[in-house]
Amino acid sequence: MQIAIQGIPGSFHHQVALNVFGADAGILGFRIFEEVAKSVSKGEAEFGVLAIENSIAGAILPNYELIDRYNLRIKDEYYLPISHNLMALPGREINNLLEVRSHPMALLQCKKFFENHPAIQLIDDVDTASVAKRISEEKLSGIGAIASKTAAKIYDLEILAEDIQTVKNNFTRFIILQKDNVNLDFVPNKASIKVTVKNSKGILAKLLTMMSDYGLDLSKIQSIPVIEKPWEYAFFIDTQFDDYAAFQNAIQEINNNFGEVKIFGEYLNRK
Amino acid sequence: MQIAIQGIPGSFHHQVALNVFGADAGILGFRIFEEVAKSVSKGEAEFGVLAIENSIAGAILPNYELIDRYNLRIKDEYYLPISHNLMALPGREINNLLEVRSHPMALLQCKKFFENHPAIQLIDDVDTASVAKRISEEKLSGIGAIASKTAAKIYDLEILAEDIQTVKNNFTRFIILQKDNVNLDFVPNKASIKVTVKNSKGILAKLLTMMSDYGLDLSKIQSIPVIEKPWEYAFFIDTQFDDYAAFQNAIQEINNNFGEVKIFGEYLNRK
Repeated sequence: MQIAIQGIPGSFHHQVALNVFGADAGILGFRIFEEVAKSVSKGEAEFGVLAIENSIAGAILPNYELIDRYNLRIKDEYYLPISHNLMALPGREINNLLEVRSHPMALLQCKKFFENHPAIQLIDDVDTASVAKRISEEKLSGIGAIASKTAAKIYDLEILAEDIQTVKNNFTRFIILQKDNVNLDFVPNKASIKVTVKNSKGILAKLLTMMSDYGLDLSKIQSIPVIEKPWEYAFFIDTQFDDYAAFQNAIQEINNNFGEVKIFGEYLNRK
Repeated sequence: MQIAIQGIPGSFHHQVALNVFGADAGILGFRIFEEVAKSVSKGEAEFGVLAIENSIAGAILPNYELIDRYNLRIKDEYYLPISHNLMALPGREINNLLEVRSHPMALLQCKKFFENHPAIQLIDDVDTASVAKRISEEKLSGIGAIASKTAAKIYDLEILAEDIQTVKNNFTRFIILQKDNVNLDFVPNKASIKVTVKNSKGILAKLLTMMSDYGLDLSKIQSIPVIEKPWEYAFFIDTQFDDYAAFQNAIQEINNNFGEVKIFGEYLNRK
């Protein structure tokens, strides 16, 4: 079984692939999200792992756009608690470090920790795991990385401080993608859909009122442009519900009275 | 006057700064958006230019989050038609090129053009202008860049094909940021706001119905998490209106009956 991820071994995507599919699954690592979507849509990878939302900046809209454009299906979701760890070559101590490199978002999330270490320079880099890899390969003794515990293990680095992120309940939501329709041998209580409506006055308010009347939770909604059709607009909606039949009725009513609806996936809420 | 942008000379942000502030303005180029926000909030740059939405992938949510976190004000908006141009060292022809490098989104947008040039390998790079710069500095004769006409001029490259993007009405929306409140010596017809509401059943539908009744356009709405308060949720809304007083009444009603509202800026619709 091949799993497509963005990033190198030790990245957060890799961690999710390990947690969901086990250590035996083959990993196909790509540099950008688009290549992950492509690999799944070509059938090269059986499943793809894609970050879709993080608890600081919210939805990762370009990745919704990829699911849409490559007609992928969401099989499941997975919440990974984001744990940032300071690591360096074995035997080093925090006071030996001249600089720490990581993804700007990771550095931002650990800013408070480094206020107690003002001598260390914080430098933006492309991602978290690749710095760990470089420190290990090039024996960079004055540099630290902020990355996952898996990265420390893979690249033989020593963890100098665990869980140094300021906000402790920081998580990233990932989705598991596949090419074909998901076999519904369970009753879903969550769905990701795209709704395209004609731009008439108040239509969004009417649409949400209808969905809300069916008991659907509507706290995740993102508007997106419809490029070639300036008179239409569209929304990505992630919705939770207790009653699957009510969700299906709402979908029916969108089709009848509001516009087009595309279901990316019906799955189980894992939060 | 100093203008903070993300990117190097010849980037799309640089182009917007030139168009809005003229060739005499000083440009402070930063590697990441966060540093642009920081520079404006410290008063180092008088204004900042930030991409906020593109016509393919929609809103750039992390940049809304920066405006919010650094308490910046939106002074104006600017729509830049995105024109992708193939360029190389002077004297080269398309058939001489072995590879073309650019940002993955730029390559994607020009995919159709390269179907007629199957010998050219397309390679993802960090952005558009920096490839142009590298070709020029390192005299890379077999490589082409996809970038703006300004980049071709700045780095002395020759344009081999103009406007090669598939979708011709492709634009990016930028906002002009400043530190202090904007002096309203005009009547605004557009606003960017953040609304935080208590999570009670159907509240979003009620909120949008109320805003719609005041005649506000609601086609741009993005939900975002409220990290430390799991029972609240928030939305970034960009709204257009004909009647400024009606907008002000709607804001008042949100404050009275729905939750908190933060106004990032009231400005003129430039589309």
